[in-house]
Amino acid sequence: MKKDYAVVGKSVRRLDAMEKAMGKATFTTDIKLPGMLYGKVLRSPHPHARIVKIDTSKAEALPGVKAVATYLNTPRVKFNTSATSTFTIPPLQPVEDQYIFDSVVRYVGDEVAAVAAVSKSIAQEALGLIEVEYELLPTVFDPLEAMKDDAPVIHESEAGKNIPGEKIHIEMGDVEKGFNEADYVFEHTFKLPVQKQAQMETQAAVAQVAVDGKVTVWSTTQTPHPSRRILATIFGIPYSKVRVLNPPYIGGGFGVRIGLSAKAEPIALALAMLAKQPVKVVYDRKEDFIASDTRHAGYVTVKTGVNKDGTFNARKITAILNSGAYCSWSAEAPGVLGAMGLSIYYCPNQLYDGHSVYTNTTPAGAMRGFGNPQAMFAVDSQVDIIAESLSMDPLELRRKNMMRTGQPWVLPYPCLSSGLEECMDRGAKEIGWERRTKLSKDGTKRRGMGMAIGTHVSNAWPFCGDYSNAYVTVQQDGSVHVASGVPDMGTGTMTTLSQMAAEILGVTIDQVGITIADTESTPFEIGSHASRTCYASGTAVVAAAQDARKQVVEYAGKMLNVNPDELDIEEGIIYSTLNEEIRVPLGTVAIEAHLHGLQFIGVGKIIPQNAPPYLAHFAEVEVDTETGKVSIIKLVAAHDVGKAIHPIIVEGQLEGGLAMGVGYALSEEIKYDSKGKQLNDGFHKYMLPTAMDIPEMKAIIVEAEDPTGPFGAKGVGETGLVATAAAIANAVYEAIGIRFFEIPLTEERVYKALKERK
Amino acid sequence: MKKDYAVVGKSVRRLDAMEKAMGKATFTTDIKLPGMLYGKVLRSPHPHARIVKIDTSKAEALPGVKAVATYLNTPRVKFNTSATSTFTIPPLQPVEDQYIFDSVVRYVGDEVAAVAAVSKSIAQEALGLIEVEYELLPTVFDPLEAMKDDAPVIHESEAGKNIPGEKIHIEMGDVEKGFNEADYVFEHTFKLPVQKQAQMETQAAVAQVAVDGKVTVWSTTQTPHPSRRILATIFGIPYSKVRVLNPPYIGGGFGVRIGLSAKAEPIALALAMLAKQPVKVVYDRKEDFIASDTRHAGYVTVKTGVNKDGTFNARKITAILNSGAYCSWSAEAPGVLGAMGLSIYYCPNQLYDGHSVYTNTTPAGAMRGFGNPQAMFAVDSQVDIIAESLSMDPLELRRKNMMRTGQPWVLPYPCLSSGLEECMDRGAKEIGWERRTKLSKDGTKRRGMGMAIGTHVSNAWPFCGDYSNAYVTVQQDGSVHVASGVPDMGTGTMTTLSQMAAEILGVTIDQVGITIADTESTPFEIGSHASRTCYASGTAVVAAAQDARKQVVEYAGKMLNVNPDELDIEEGIIYSTLNEEIRVPLGTVAIEAHLHGLQFIGVGKIIPQNAPPYLAHFAEVEVDTETGKVSIIKLVAAHDVGKAIHPIIVEGQLEGGLAMGVGYALSEEIKYDSKGKQLNDGFHKYMLPTAMDIPEMKAIIVEAEDPTGPFGAKGVGETGLVATAAAIANAVYEAIGIRFFEIPLTEERVYKALKERK
Repeated sequence: MKKDYAVVGKSVRRLDAMEKAMGKATFTTDIKLPGMLYGKVLRSPHPHARIVKIDTSKAEALPGVKAVATYLNTPRVKFNTSATSTFTIPPLQPVEDQYIFDSVVRYVGDEVAAVAAVSKSIAQEALGLIEVEYELLPTVFDPLEAMKDDAPVIHESEAGKNIPGEKIHIEMGDVEKGFNEADYVFEHTFKLPVQKQAQMETQAAVAQVAVDGKVTVWSTTQTPHPSRRILATIFGIPYSKVRVLNPPYIGGGFGVRIGLSAKAEPIALALAMLAKQPVKVVYDRKEDFIASDTRHAGYVTVKTGVNKDGTFNARKITAILNSGAYCSWSAEAPGVLGAMGLSIYYCPNQLYDGHSVYTNTTPAGAMRGFGNPQAMFAVDSQVDIIAESLSMDPLELRRKNMMRTGQPWVLPYPCLSSGLEECMDRGAKEIGWERRTKLSKDGTKRRGMGMAIGTHVSNAWPFCGDYSNAYVTVQQDGSVHVASGVPDMGTGTMTTLSQMAAEILGVTIDQVGITIADTESTPFEIGSHASRTCYASGTAVVAAAQDARKQVVEYAGKMLNVNPDELDIEEGIIYSTLNEEIRVPLGTVAIEAHLHGLQFIGVGKIIPQNAPPYLAHFAEVEVDTETGKVSIIKLVAAHDVGKAIHPIIVEGQLEGGLAMGVGYALSEEIKYDSKGKQLNDGFHKYMLPTAMDIPEMKAIIVEAEDPTGPFGAKGVGETGLVATAAAIANAVYEAIGIRFFEIPLTEERVYKALKERK
Repeated sequence: MKKDYAVVGKSVRRLDAMEKAMGKATFTTDIKLPGMLYGKVLRSPHPHARIVKIDTSKAEALPGVKAVATYLNTPRVKFNTSATSTFTIPPLQPVEDQYIFDSVVRYVGDEVAAVAAVSKSIAQEALGLIEVEYELLPTVFDPLEAMKDDAPVIHESEAGKNIPGEKIHIEMGDVEKGFNEADYVFEHTFKLPVQKQAQMETQAAVAQVAVDGKVTVWSTTQTPHPSRRILATIFGIPYSKVRVLNPPYIGGGFGVRIGLSAKAEPIALALAMLAKQPVKVVYDRKEDFIASDTRHAGYVTVKTGVNKDGTFNARKITAILNSGAYCSWSAEAPGVLGAMGLSIYYCPNQLYDGHSVYTNTTPAGAMRGFGNPQAMFAVDSQVDIIAESLSMDPLELRRKNMMRTGQPWVLPYPCLSSGLEECMDRGAKEIGWERRTKLSKDGTKRRGMGMAIGTHVSNAWPFCGDYSNAYVTVQQDGSVHVASGVPDMGTGTMTTLSQMAAEILGVTIDQVGITIADTESTPFEIGSHASRTCYASGTAVVAAAQDARKQVVEYAGKMLNVNPDELDIEEGIIYSTLNEEIRVPLGTVAIEAHLHGLQFIGVGKIIPQNAPPYLAHFAEVEVDTETGKVSIIKLVAAHDVGKAIHPIIVEGQLEGGLAMGVGYALSEEIKYDSKGKQLNDGFHKYMLPTAMDIPEMKAIIVEAEDPTGPFGAKGVGETGLVATAAAIANAVYEAIGIRFFEIPLTEERVYKALKERK
């Protein structure tokens, strides 16, 4: 592809900008249908219990109540809210351990029943009239405890006590030999907290069942096509009779609705079928916290064998993650943790063992980074320990060991491009790395500087099924329409995909219309996850646009009596690259084709490759030794994004990720009381960083174009927080000399550590 | 194609049956959007006038009024509501003679202004506050008068005084020589009335403009893609930013909204743009009558040279049709009149001259039959005159002269199949043709039997641009999704197209989902007109399904390690025709493909051929000589439909057409007073036949499969009334011996004729 792009690489006005700025964008909660009811969910107050008896008669008798759903009158078909049925490819088998409602509840917040009523308040009132008799069952909350022989069984499992799916094992070289040959061996265990996606829009769905049984569900899902599959399977309907779509906007996701929006869709649909009226289910913030996936908490142990010159010779990572009460993505997250943790540095002998463990807590699932932030907090905290031990500059130790293109790694695809070293160099320059050893260590405000690096994926291939299709059609005026099943969670996907189609077909961005996230209007598309929308959905759009373009230039070649190969398109004009007198508007060719009964219809069917984005994060912090408060002075994030299709969107992704990384590092954590109840189930209790907490941030875009990506692009949706916590923790160590093996670095934790040291 | 179909040919439950039976089907009038306003239109009370001054200030000041649109604040872009811009192919040029609003009004009902307000009543009240000063212009109402030199000019025209488009001339052989050589020459002129489509749902549209300018219009159009083109052109928006769709149901059409729904769409859109709120415009029944296209009235002269043995040796048809105030389809209708009138009988020497003429009456456009009922009333009335003159049985005279496959005709495509003779024979048998000469002629109730024959088209190719595209995708469970831009006006198109896809892909009908009539979800499709949806849209769906099927069997062949050519699919099972042990469900293949990143996506891109359906209509009538009332005792309609994909749908089409033909023959006519005002502008004044007026009807399906049609099917949407009026008039002649050269045969007209004869 040529490099002087007309639309790609330009920060055109986002296609969603006007509607959002004007408050006119439609989200699921805005959907209102004639006769629509409101659904509310009764949730378990117990972390583990059997429902001995459930009496819904009083609730059903309440005027305005139209349906009450329990495990007794809804399908008994197992599924996994996270759509692993669609993603998992043999030999792996999807773990399906959920029902809409079950006779056993396994965490505080688990679904017991739901009511549809003419108003939210009546539905809420009816919940209180449902009488449930529980038999309490023994509980376990910690994954290490849950693996013990005497722990209660939460789900039967073949892989081991309370272990969902299969244990992950990754190996390269001979790790024992590597440790034996190494001059030094370092081993540390890190503990990771429960982080919450805290997306702005809570889980929501509106379900409508036509009298002939056809189903339409508007929802906040990140993956309409896979979600359709779950719903069709649960309710036994042909997929072609189920339509799942975004409305089209979603207020964020960060992985929390890859697959269903928790259980908003099946509950709304079950109620709609019972009531024979449309039903809207919108989780309140508390429900979103307690009954919607979180990031995996757990334990990561890193053991590294190092030669005297700093070269890594062997590395072993082990991880135990807390799955919570259901599997969700718990079979997959440990795999990404291991694969990413092992792939940022070259090391000839590597080994990873990891898995999740069921406990009686809120299920953990996908969250931006998907295991990688856990891995990199551990790995890159230890790298700084090693650097100090060897008296090396952490930057130089990383430079010595960092993965380079062509080096062997554990990933099942090649690394064809890397801007990692450029990221380190430009990031170091921006933060002023040379100041690192000169920062103030006097008084009660101590400054430190730290860094960390990372990589990630551009989609889930070949770990999971991951493919995209798209249509790109040329209209009779030469304008272009794109149809892709991928959602735009606020990440600018609509704009980015439209730019790609515009670039390929040589039209301006205002000539492109786009339909997204609707199973009825688009071919199969796995959806928005794994940093894939630009890279993978984009590749499908590019393929479809190229298919249409080929038809256009062939037709134009015949019209103009020239070889199609000499034709190019720019700003809507098809012209000969050999004869400047040969020029014709694309619209003229389109209408001429129309007059001959032809539309240019491009179909893109692709299985993406994969490409590693790279990043280097640098943090300067100030620790108040009197209070334990960590203030971030500046964050620098240099990212190899392959190619920034829309630089402002890319910067937005990076900055958003950094903010989330700041929360992960310093303040965000869901804790449970001794009875399995969340202590931080709302925005007033869960300490998201606010605008006041966000430091000066500098996102640096490095473009090491990848030959597999559209226009060279790589995934950028998750990288922003992969290494942030490690960089901050390393900076805190530099400031106060205390190494933390657990995050977040709250004032309480830092203060306590300072006090203990004294 | 094999003949033992599993789904095709079966009257499966219609896909729209449940929703319509339960009152749950959504039509345009059911659309309600947040903040939606109601639009009302001010219409001209004068048949021809110049607007000297228009003052909307009082209307704008009325509380609740949000916008007032006139020619002063709406786009001055010419168009043709009938979408001829999309249909017309060179060398013909579309006639575009309309604005949303103009400074000259040309018929009573012409659009002067429109108001959008928060309620219908406020909008209506505001209309009364618009002050318009008119300068009256001279008028003309009859097409023959309008061609005269001293007639007022309604539109400038190159083809002749007040003649829209070009005059149609068709010629074969040497007609003058033919007349000279003939033994007898017959010449008669017939006068045709204004018939109204009288579809149940009046013209309607809801327009919404997003804050970023993207437009969505739900409407009653029969052609979403061409309508989108008109709207995009008028308002200067890229086509890809305009979405036009049915909601998805339409309450009939019969041609009245090929293109726009009168001006409901552009008026709603203009108001929505001015008001910055969604606007709904629903014509009331009176508006639908006075300001929405009608069938063409006019004069048809038939001159036939006949040999002594009854062989037709020369035929000349001339037609002058009343276009009304704007062109609409008036450039095309005379062509179909001539082409069809000349093509039902073989005649070596033929000539046709015809055109329309502007007058100051409601525009005439497309209506079921599109010129053909006018032609056949004239042609087949005269055939009976000839038969009587030669003392021949009209059936035998028709048999002698009827068109047979392989004979030369004026149409630009071959006749590859004909069930005409079978239609005549089976129809004659059903009505009891042998009783014809023995019917009672005594007393005041006189019986007679008559017949007439006809042909029509299966789409508009190659007279107009006419092509279809479709997507057919296989879902991961083996169910099938069809996407076609064609509407279902109530004619069962959704069902018929789904049956075709089911048949090709070997699944049951309940496995097929379908999306129709939405420019955003479907590739270009010209729409529902010219009896084409089954034949032409069906051909595109079949092509797409075959494309998908090819992918399926190729994939299955690899899976099963057999030659794909030996595989067939039935009831969702792919099996080897050579080895009965080789069987695999389609769903298994679909999910296997999914696991390898593949969906079967079929694209159908077709330009249809054309095929002549044939028909023979037989009527037995009873005329009350004391009152002039014509009662139909029985109607028999034998139709060569090629292949009845869904027999009950086909019968429904035929019976519906017959009922419309009964109205054309006996009661329906719009008349004007001397000032150009319709005298029959509502259902209480316009005499549609009611259930009480409909006789016993027998639709006979003859299946002379056409090699160009999907499964052999031909168009059947319009044929039901092609010959009905002629058959009835011939029966009336047989009953009372009076030949009518003008319809409808109202009691008044028949009584008057009986009285005159006395």
